[in-house]
Amino acid sequence: MEIKSLTEQKSLLATLSPGKRARLRRLLFEFGPGNGTLMLLPIDQGIEHGPRDFFPNPASKDPEYQFRLAAEAGYSAIACQIGLATKYYPDYAGQVPLILKVNGKTDIPPSDEALSTTNASVEDAVRLGADAVGYTLYVGSPRQGEDLHQLRQVREDCDRYGMPLIIWSYPRGRDIERKGGQSSFYAIDYAARLAMEMGADVVKLNFPKLDPEKAKDSPAPYNELEVGSEEAVRQIVESAGRSLVVLSGGSKTDDETVLSHTRTIMEAGGSGVIFGRNVWQREWGEALEIIEQIKETLLSSVRRIP
Amino acid sequence: MEIKSLTEQKSLLATLSPGKRARLRRLLFEFGPGNGTLMLLPIDQGIEHGPRDFFPNPASKDPEYQFRLAAEAGYSAIACQIGLATKYYPDYAGQVPLILKVNGKTDIPPSDEALSTTNASVEDAVRLGADAVGYTLYVGSPRQGEDLHQLRQVREDCDRYGMPLIIWSYPRGRDIERKGGQSSFYAIDYAARLAMEMGADVVKLNFPKLDPEKAKDSPAPYNELEVGSEEAVRQIVESAGRSLVVLSGGSKTDDETVLSHTRTIMEAGGSGVIFGRNVWQREWGEALEIIEQIKETLLSSVRRIP
Amino acid sequence: MEIKSLTEQKSLLATLSPGKRARLRRLLFEFGPGNGTLMLLPIDQGIEHGPRDFFPNPASKDPEYQFRLAAEAGYSAIACQIGLATKYYPDYAGQVPLILKVNGKTDIPPSDEALSTTNASVEDAVRLGADAVGYTLYVGSPRQGEDLHQLRQVREDCDRYGMPLIIWSYPRGRDIERKGGQSSFYAIDYAARLAMEMGADVVKLNFPKLDPEKAKDSPAPYNELEVGSEEAVRQIVESAGRSLVVLSGGSKTDDETVLSHTRTIMEAGGSGVIFGRNVWQREWGEALEIIEQIKETLLSSVRRIP
Amino acid sequence: MEIKSLTEQKSLLATLSPGKRARLRRLLFEFGPGNGTLMLLPIDQGIEHGPRDFFPNPASKDPEYQFRLAAEAGYSAIACQIGLATKYYPDYAGQVPLILKVNGKTDIPPSDEALSTTNASVEDAVRLGADAVGYTLYVGSPRQGEDLHQLRQVREDCDRYGMPLIIWSYPRGRDIERKGGQSSFYAIDYAARLAMEMGADVVKLNFPKLDPEKAKDSPAPYNELEVGSEEAVRQIVESAGRSLVVLSGGSKTDDETVLSHTRTIMEAGGSGVIFGRNVWQREWGEALEIIEQIKETLLSSVRRIP
Amino acid sequence: MEIKSLTEQKSLLATLSPGKRARLRRLLFEFGPGNGTLMLLPIDQGIEHGPRDFFPNPASKDPEYQFRLAAEAGYSAIACQIGLATKYYPDYAGQVPLILKVNGKTDIPPSDEALSTTNASVEDAVRLGADAVGYTLYVGSPRQGEDLHQLRQVREDCDRYGMPLIIWSYPRGRDIERKGGQSSFYAIDYAARLAMEMGADVVKLNFPKLDPEKAKDSPAPYNELEVGSEEAVRQIVESAGRSLVVLSGGSKTDDETVLSHTRTIMEAGGSGVIFGRNVWQREWGEALEIIEQIKETLLSSVRRIP
Repeated sequence: MEIKSLTEQKSLLATLSPGKRARLRRLLFEFGPGNGTLMLLPIDQGIEHGPRDFFPNPASKDPEYQFRLAAEAGYSAIACQIGLATKYYPDYAGQVPLILKVNGKTDIPPSDEALSTTNASVEDAVRLGADAVGYTLYVGSPRQGEDLHQLRQVREDCDRYGMPLIIWSYPRGRDIERKGGQSSFYAIDYAARLAMEMGADVVKLNFPKLDPEKAKDSPAPYNELEVGSEEAVRQIVESAGRSLVVLSGGSKTDDETVLSHTRTIMEAGGSGVIFGRNVWQREWGEALEIIEQIKETLLSSVRRIP
Repeated sequence: MEIKSLTEQKSLLATLSPGKRARLRRLLFEFGPGNGTLMLLPIDQGIEHGPRDFFPNPASKDPEYQFRLAAEAGYSAIACQIGLATKYYPDYAGQVPLILKVNGKTDIPPSDEALSTTNASVEDAVRLGADAVGYTLYVGSPRQGEDLHQLRQVREDCDRYGMPLIIWSYPRGRDIERKGGQSSFYAIDYAARLAMEMGADVVKLNFPKLDPEKAKDSPAPYNELEVGSEEAVRQIVESAGRSLVVLSGGSKTDDETVLSHTRTIMEAGGSGVIFGRNVWQREWGEALEIIEQIKETLLSSVRRIP
Repeated sequence: MEIKSLTEQKSLLATLSPGKRARLRRLLFEFGPGNGTLMLLPIDQGIEHGPRDFFPNPASKDPEYQFRLAAEAGYSAIACQIGLATKYYPDYAGQVPLILKVNGKTDIPPSDEALSTTNASVEDAVRLGADAVGYTLYVGSPRQGEDLHQLRQVREDCDRYGMPLIIWSYPRGRDIERKGGQSSFYAIDYAARLAMEMGADVVKLNFPKLDPEKAKDSPAPYNELEVGSEEAVRQIVESAGRSLVVLSGGSKTDDETVLSHTRTIMEAGGSGVIFGRNVWQREWGEALEIIEQIKETLLSSVRRIP
Repeated sequence: MEIKSLTEQKSLLATLSPGKRARLRRLLFEFGPGNGTLMLLPIDQGIEHGPRDFFPNPASKDPEYQFRLAAEAGYSAIACQIGLATKYYPDYAGQVPLILKVNGKTDIPPSDEALSTTNASVEDAVRLGADAVGYTLYVGSPRQGEDLHQLRQVREDCDRYGMPLIIWSYPRGRDIERKGGQSSFYAIDYAARLAMEMGADVVKLNFPKLDPEKAKDSPAPYNELEVGSEEAVRQIVESAGRSLVVLSGGSKTDDETVLSHTRTIMEAGGSGVIFGRNVWQREWGEALEIIEQIKETLLSSVRRIP
Repeated sequence: MEIKSLTEQKSLLATLSPGKRARLRRLLFEFGPGNGTLMLLPIDQGIEHGPRDFFPNPASKDPEYQFRLAAEAGYSAIACQIGLATKYYPDYAGQVPLILKVNGKTDIPPSDEALSTTNASVEDAVRLGADAVGYTLYVGSPRQGEDLHQLRQVREDCDRYGMPLIIWSYPRGRDIERKGGQSSFYAIDYAARLAMEMGADVVKLNFPKLDPEKAKDSPAPYNELEVGSEEAVRQIVESAGRSLVVLSGGSKTDDETVLSHTRTIMEAGGSGVIFGRNVWQREWGEALEIIEQIKETLLSSVRRIP
């Protein structure tokens, strides 16, 4: 048996229960750019980093900004915590799908032993009419045992209610720092596989930052691999198997990088992107422009229709 | 204070919880003819009447027929029982919204003391990714006490999960027969109000069949009213208040009647139609034709956008 | 020990748990005419009788009519079923207290074996911000066993959540008809005591209609008593003990009767009235006028401050 | 899209479920100064600091003092723990709304790793007839994970029972001390946003104490901002979005400061104040005087009616 | 408003639910010295200190000794853990009321981070026919968060079952030692208030041991107060508000001290004493003698009848 290329992989949707399929299909085909792609707008930085992220574009401080952007620019879905879902989503209910993030934390304490506890439930997501649930998993954290156990409940509830599970799979904590760092190929590759193994329908991953010097601390054979970013992303997507992969953007960068990362993830067999600050730290008009370009890039680089 | 005309009534969507709003909005605006209308396809006749309804168009015996019709002809939703939802809906999950009927019965015993017990739950509907739940209430049946009590659980679960509740509100049983019959203005007017009072988001009603002779047995003032069908429908829709009204069709009739009923319900401030046999007892091409005409009639007669 | 007159009775509020006290005090002192009186507006006729009650004043068919009346005319509370509470009360939430009726039925079947099953829960009432729960008890019905058992759950939940319990205590069914009828002194006196014994905080009773001929069928000594209406009401209120009594009005009658009944119940030590059709079957201006007169009568006839 | 000023923001009440709306409306309009303002009286210092806070005004040691003050001086609500709510509130039930604080701790242990565990439930609040629930969240504490998870249950129960949630959002613990301190603009701005994201209907915040030297340790851009107190408060209120903001007072200060802080929070779009020691550490007559001045200041500085 | 003296305070019994009132009244009036006093016999030293406490009077090792003493000498109640309640109380059931202690610990580990976990439930207490429940709270311990959270369940169950709650309120742990010690006025005053705020119906406190040198480490104003024992006790009782206070005795001391402490607590408005070793470390006859003297002292010093 030969390993199938990702573009030949069995459709994820075909393996999902009807509820998960109905909901995920909405994101992939009915809303957003469509054709099996995901263009997601995250607005959880207010809890993860605090209001400091809103200073570059003061309008972005009002959650209306992101909700209106998601609805009007045609996103596949918007991802947020329970407070925004309760107080801002209702005005856009049904106009853009909702991903309810069910855990989160501030970045005030250090992240050596990171753990993001749940502040909402899958039942909250059902009640609010969400089409997916988001969970942040800190891969390799000293507290990963608690994390995986907590995820179990979320995953079981997702199975029970037919709710797609999107895992924000982030290597984190003091131990991964000693093994090449949280942005290494090793770390992100591991994060992709772990999320898939834990039941993710979609995995959200960071773009790897390859640093040959730090990579030497990674376990073999990662310490000796000489792969470029594109190849690394390709392998990472492969590690996620039938789970779909979306790439997250991190802090604001130039348009070129945004679009090239988008192209890279799609050509690697990924399903889309989840860019926050790179989009809503721009003024309305500029935001719409980059969104349009992201959308075009997504659609023109599709390799795998789930 | 003057009574507001229905077209001026407060938007139903504005009063709904976010989950109900997100889900119902899909039916009203994202799928089907849109602009706040409902074109629903019921396929529960196999349990309510048995396979005899499929003989006029043998293709209709395969539930694929109705599911494919609903998806391809652009219905707002398809309504069925748990078995079809489990075995046929998955192929169409996300392509057309699902209404899970949670009760049903055969027509083998007489309906003097009609009661339709639940065979599925709102949680089933959530799990399957349905966007609404359907419940048949037999208004005025000697067993209405059991019925209203059973409906309570369904309604509470709908509230809990943010699931829209559609009540098939049917006058039935020996007592209503003594008071003008189940198709009288009195009976259907009462059914509209009762469904609304019990928490229906959408009420499914039959078109009244006015029979002046039988109407004399209805309580005052119905026994003396001289109203035509259109006026009766207008008043019935008014009795449903903020609950949306869809008209059901009953057994197959001529195109003229189908379209004229559609026009009547819309002009009375209703939200749409739920025609089954009138549609799928036709062959594929003919079915598509009448659907197209229904759709046009719906859209051209909209009086109230919820 | 001498029996205390009702006006000397221990305060009901002093015996209530804090939650019941806080909520009931709102109705008695913070909203409505105040000074310990209750002026309640019922709008459950749409389910109990159907839309026929709305014909005398078509504006009354829109539930907005009653809600706006309750809020603007300064009622102690409005009483309705779950559907109106969900779809119409939110616009008036906090402006007029809500009494959620948790059971109800249509009058299509005969009432020989009346039983009104629950269609909502005390938890629904809590969730909606209601200040009391209403329950219809059919005293003496052949199905009273089911009725009392069903009431048990409602009463226990009221105790658990600190929710005042108002019992619509109505003699009903074929057996009471054989013993003097549902409007006899015997029947209503029994209804008052039963409601109090079952845990009512407030009892809603009909005004007795004394018919010496029918009274002969009542058990001794009722079959031989020669009491006038006022004395009967006085004794009935006494039978309710520390439970407060409100008088219901029934079908529309002349102003004189409305006001004289109001005076009678208050002078008997009762706490107020719950008139529906007598109020909202009038046009807006006329309704406000009779309400003003009821209010004055209530306040000028107070004998007992709970 | 331009950011809307807070005074143009969508009404909070319009987004709330009926139960939350009914209850919160009582505090904002039916009790207290009204017109959408909140004047809250906290009496939880006995647990948070111990009896030492009562020495300046010995009468304040008897909880009757604060309850009578709240009722007679016309407060929007009184906030206390379960013991006072059980033993002192009943005498005032319905006369002044109750906010049940459901967590608390003594200040005997250091607060490096502060966590305030729950000692009461939302169901307790329902049972006692409370109109809101209070929860203290220690933003940025090393134990914030436990805190946010614990808050989840409280928030879910508030959603379930229609109970408004007021978050005492306090930056606390060793890590925030290293980033500018618990009274910095950075810390309080973050606390405002976090509370809103966690589902607060009302956020209670401390007045920031700007210390340019310590602010240098805050993350960018806070380490370089040059904003005065009023501007900082304005931005903080903005960070709370649709959640209403009340300012807490802390230890007793001069009248001038009390009133100027009141003015500042109102002009920034906040909804009111929650001053404890600044009020009840005064003798009865003096307390009434400052309350009167606070009330006038609140009403004359209203910018936003929720 | 003047603060009322404790002897003028509102009756505690009047604020209690019927079940709590019925049970507590047995202790205060039907058993023991009566007239609203509490003479309690604790026999939990076997778990708190081990058998070493029984050596001074070997007969005391047999729990029969304490149970018989409690019953025959006319105690208000006996307090013990689940094992004694199960194996020894049955012979005395109904002859002397039972207080079931639901938590406890050995003194083998140090008490720097004291926490006493529950080993029995309020439901156990109901099952055994107990008339109150006892809970030890370690005020100010680093683990107070767990303690208060654990107490929540006990208190809620007491509310649910109408069971009086007696809190053994003991300052404890390394942090209180740094602030004047567990026997300081500051510590015990705080303990009194905290127990009341957490819902105690009765608070058990230690007699303060005033040490001017250590008191300097207490927070202001305790570090500067010059109060004698009697004044301290008076203020401590005041801090407990409507919760009744009983004084515990600690290790065996001379008769003079026993009786003078008894007099002091009663004259301060307390409700009684709970002396263990001071009583049952004496031989039967001697025990009866001191009990008689305690009883007389209690009755002759009553200042407040609850």
